[in-house]
Amino acid sequence: MKKIDYIIKYPERKYKKFWNPLFRDKKNWLFGYFKPTARSLEELTYLELHKYPELFLLVKGRIVLTLKKNKNSRIEELELKPGEVVIVNCWHNGYALEPDSVSLVIERPVNPTKKIML
Amino acid sequence: MKKIDYIIKYPERKYKKFWNPLFRDKKNWLFGYFKPTARSLEELTYLELHKYPELFLLVKGRIVLTLKKNKNSRIEELELKPGEVVIVNCWHNGYALEPDSVSLVIERPVNPTKKIML
Repeated sequence: MKKIDYIIKYPERKYKKFWNPLFRDKKNWLFGYFKPTARSLEELTYLELHKYPELFLLVKGRIVLTLKKNKNSRIEELELKPGEVVIVNCWHNGYALEPDSVSLVIERPVNPTKKIML
Repeated sequence: MKKIDYIIKYPERKYKKFWNPLFRDKKNWLFGYFKPTARSLEELTYLELHKYPELFLLVKGRIVLTLKKNKNSRIEELELKPGEVVIVNCWHNGYALEPDSVSLVIERPVNPTKKIML
């Protein structure tokens, strides 16, 4: 995490990992770039459920969120649209329809997580 | 503020005000769309300083942030670039170079604010 300066810039192209947590405001919120590596639902091996909500906003490319309302619901696929924030409070993961696709993520820095394998 | 459901979508085109606070995760973080109405630095009448950092990400159009490191510094102009998060910890405001320009904003829901008139 970078020291707080009066302006901090985070160009998405600088960050290469699947999950790049980049800044947090103490215990309140964390910002990161999510760069899914899976290219289809079949390539995903798990879904996650966090205790607190998670925000997504498409930054580049095409990303599909894979969502399950409850453990026994079917998986719904929701493509992120440019200019549309999506907030998720359920089991989720995501894949990219185009290489180098990126979403902004906001959530609490401590967000207890459960996983189910697919 | 909308009740938490398992998925919530916020298409930016639905929100028309200068400042549209749309969702908060309790006392931790707030998300809103900022749609500046000023079209130049000359049209801005004040700058704000918050106690806690504020995150901007360009969603549509062209927006310039007007920033002052300290009360006595000169005003710097910083155009938001697509795919670049900017976090601000100083006096700030913003104007749009194109009509209907939009930025995502993330900050704490309670973010004490001072103003200086320009």
